[in-house]
Amino acid sequence: MADITNNPAPATSMTKAGFPPFSQRHLLAIGDLEQHEIIDLLDRSEAMVAVSRQQRKSLSTLSGKTQINLFFENSTRTQSSFEIAGKRLGALVVNMSVKTSSVAKGETLIDTAATLNAMRPDVIVVRHGAAGAVELLSQKVGCSVINAGDGGHEHPTQALLDALTIRRHKGRISGLTVAICGDIANSRVARSNLLLLGAMNVRTRVIAPRTLLPVGIENLATEVYTDMNEGLRDVDVVMMLRLQHERASGRLIPSTREYYRFYGLDEEKLANAKPDAIVMHPGPMNRGVEIDPAIADGPRSVINDQVEMGVAVRMAVLDALLPDSEGGQA
Amino acid sequence: MADITNNPAPATSMTKAGFPPFSQRHLLAIGDLEQHEIIDLLDRSEAMVAVSRQQRKSLSTLSGKTQINLFFENSTRTQSSFEIAGKRLGALVVNMSVKTSSVAKGETLIDTAATLNAMRPDVIVVRHGAAGAVELLSQKVGCSVINAGDGGHEHPTQALLDALTIRRHKGRISGLTVAICGDIANSRVARSNLLLLGAMNVRTRVIAPRTLLPVGIENLATEVYTDMNEGLRDVDVVMMLRLQHERASGRLIPSTREYYRFYGLDEEKLANAKPDAIVMHPGPMNRGVEIDPAIADGPRSVINDQVEMGVAVRMAVLDALLPDSEGGQA
Amino acid sequence: MADITNNPAPATSMTKAGFPPFSQRHLLAIGDLEQHEIIDLLDRSEAMVAVSRQQRKSLSTLSGKTQINLFFENSTRTQSSFEIAGKRLGALVVNMSVKTSSVAKGETLIDTAATLNAMRPDVIVVRHGAAGAVELLSQKVGCSVINAGDGGHEHPTQALLDALTIRRHKGRISGLTVAICGDIANSRVARSNLLLLGAMNVRTRVIAPRTLLPVGIENLATEVYTDMNEGLRDVDVVMMLRLQHERASGRLIPSTREYYRFYGLDEEKLANAKPDAIVMHPGPMNRGVEIDPAIADGPRSVINDQVEMGVAVRMAVLDALLPDSEGGQA
Repeated sequence: MADITNNPAPATSMTKAGFPPFSQRHLLAIGDLEQHEIIDLLDRSEAMVAVSRQQRKSLSTLSGKTQINLFFENSTRTQSSFEIAGKRLGALVVNMSVKTSSVAKGETLIDTAATLNAMRPDVIVVRHGAAGAVELLSQKVGCSVINAGDGGHEHPTQALLDALTIRRHKGRISGLTVAICGDIANSRVARSNLLLLGAMNVRTRVIAPRTLLPVGIENLATEVYTDMNEGLRDVDVVMMLRLQHERASGRLIPSTREYYRFYGLDEEKLANAKPDAIVMHPGPMNRGVEIDPAIADGPRSVINDQVEMGVAVRMAVLDALLPDSEGGQA
Repeated sequence: MADITNNPAPATSMTKAGFPPFSQRHLLAIGDLEQHEIIDLLDRSEAMVAVSRQQRKSLSTLSGKTQINLFFENSTRTQSSFEIAGKRLGALVVNMSVKTSSVAKGETLIDTAATLNAMRPDVIVVRHGAAGAVELLSQKVGCSVINAGDGGHEHPTQALLDALTIRRHKGRISGLTVAICGDIANSRVARSNLLLLGAMNVRTRVIAPRTLLPVGIENLATEVYTDMNEGLRDVDVVMMLRLQHERASGRLIPSTREYYRFYGLDEEKLANAKPDAIVMHPGPMNRGVEIDPAIADGPRSVINDQVEMGVAVRMAVLDALLPDSEGGQA
Repeated sequence: MADITNNPAPATSMTKAGFPPFSQRHLLAIGDLEQHEIIDLLDRSEAMVAVSRQQRKSLSTLSGKTQINLFFENSTRTQSSFEIAGKRLGALVVNMSVKTSSVAKGETLIDTAATLNAMRPDVIVVRHGAAGAVELLSQKVGCSVINAGDGGHEHPTQALLDALTIRRHKGRISGLTVAICGDIANSRVARSNLLLLGAMNVRTRVIAPRTLLPVGIENLATEVYTDMNEGLRDVDVVMMLRLQHERASGRLIPSTREYYRFYGLDEEKLANAKPDAIVMHPGPMNRGVEIDPAIADGPRSVINDQVEMGVAVRMAVLDALLPDSEGGQA
């Protein structure tokens, strides 16, 4: 049965908010999750959307828990989303921004992990510039670890929030056709989305200039295009990516004007998609580079919904990974 | 009846702490407030002074609410004051410091507003370098917005805390004579104070060198002086301003030594004021530039009281703008 | 009776968690504490270790209290430890990082103190680059002040957490032999530890090259060595110090390779200590400079325990200094 509704699955041996215990201790990669776990997290997220829309937007399920946000790369947006998520669940949230420039990174990371672990947090949310760094850290600590982006590897909560946004707008995920467009090679967002959508039986397309397509992309995506008009034909969902100047070490980046002409999403290119196709972007947008501002602000854009779903998904993930403090609503 | 006492007005259709509902959704400018709204906020602030002087300095009226402090300009002092205010009311407070230098500002501001709004905050406290930026942001979000300073335009909570400090020391506001001295041209503090004091029937004087007087100042102040001795004659309140080097683009600033000689507040100049005149400064002070340290630390100085009233006024504003979470004291 | 057990002293006129009132208002220096006060703080810390190991790691004894962390020097580790400590006790914690480079420091410090004091905090945790700055600040405020490190002077909570770690591993403190090795001259950690261990009847040794020994060290330490093998003979505890490049103004620092050869802790040098000797380091470590990574990560290392005890000691100090908000557990 392909259709995934918004209704939580019927419960057996319920714990939190009517959901069965979650089977993972960390959330490091979409690649680690089974389809039923993805659906479970989306169902839990729906409940959290409701919490964040209440007059009083908080639970106490993580009361007395300590959440450390450890960001080796700056990201005001993602860090704030995790901070709000943790605080709405009643957790004690501590932000740590770390500059790693001057230190031998591998060594410092392990010492940092050991130090933080000794402070007895319940969960560490980590963003790091190196693929695999978050998993390495997770092996050195006794608490849950959430990957908030590790180099070009994965950004699992982004893929979950994108999936939740799609499911709420399309009523389902499986069976759709989704195009991911732009700087695929440098994008952990693309990678996590392709893994999640693949696990959900979605027909995935990537569209990018050859220079921005990674080796082996055909193993992750159903179809690969270098022409936007062709790639967007009859898709249900258009996911634009941010041009990742900061992770583009040594690759050929076209001029932004040329990039916009061939790969920026404008009305003409979008006309190839289904009439009810939605447009997504993980933000922050380079307006006029990846996307025409009129589309970003237009009726098909669900970009702000993605941000809202981000808080809900992070609440759900925190709640699912951590044992309950008390079991009641504040 | 000119005399404004510390007693809260008699209540009709009470909600929070015995006060009627506040009629505004945002606090963007003193210029938007009626006299009765100013008095209402001062009365509410009195109640908050009492809370901050308790052994246990907190309420739970904003429990479950999310407050975002969005500071595009650094201000440890003002941001901390708003942070303490929100936390003492039980709100979840998230700080965001944003550098805007490298981005096209107008565009980014609107995208930032949309992103924050999607996280469903209840209130956003904004400081921005451009006049009008906070109002623009307020039009793009569904929550309350408080202006914590926007360029040379307004800084309404500063004017309220100054008014509260005056009322507590003088027993009233209306009918007094208040001199605002120094860098009027670059000061949102001066502007907000002139608007508030004007609305409260205060005789306002500005005293500054010609180069630091803005065009049209005679429409805001009752009297304009360029000589400190004349301007301070028989005033009840002396408000010194910080020399705003950072907003003085292109204007002629005298040397600080020369400035102090003619416009720095020393005992000799202060002797022109009433014997019981009080001395104010919004901080941080440039000692020996705007003010003789002996006066700053002396018996007429109410500078530290201003800081205390700042927390109380911000608690009152947050409490007045936001609907109650539960209605009880923690 | 030399043996100090982990059991809290029998209680008279109990207040918090069964402990008598603490006799100090500030914690500025180990040099201000009597032996019984040190033991009292260690006993209180034991209770806090238990809290941080619970499923729900929080109390509400400081609910409604405001804690300001005022760090004039960056220290992610120490600031986070104090932040977690305060939050686990239910306090409202506000972080302030201050750059002082451009300002006349003495003056700014006093103005900063007055401003913070006016916001009515209950405790200010201060780190400052100048010896004595924290005590100066404490004289200007009406709340408790905790010294989180002031120049080369003291770092009292570090000495307390080291003592707690020793007591837990050795069952006692008095009667042990403890060697402190390395950059003694620039180390407030060494100074605070020597004062605490001296008060606890410990035989203290310092080991360092002549250039890293301060004048008058023989008044603080029982014995002074310049040779590691001699100094480590039969000690119970080896405390390594971080090479303080940043506070080494004008002193002769050997090359790190040469330093490691003569003063870095490796298996060969450690073989001189007692077979059950423990190894400590205040962190962050310069691996391969002060210490062989194999020892840092080996079975004798208690470095991570020090970090855990850090949170517990800071909880105990906060709890001991501040009057109770309500007296119950959350």
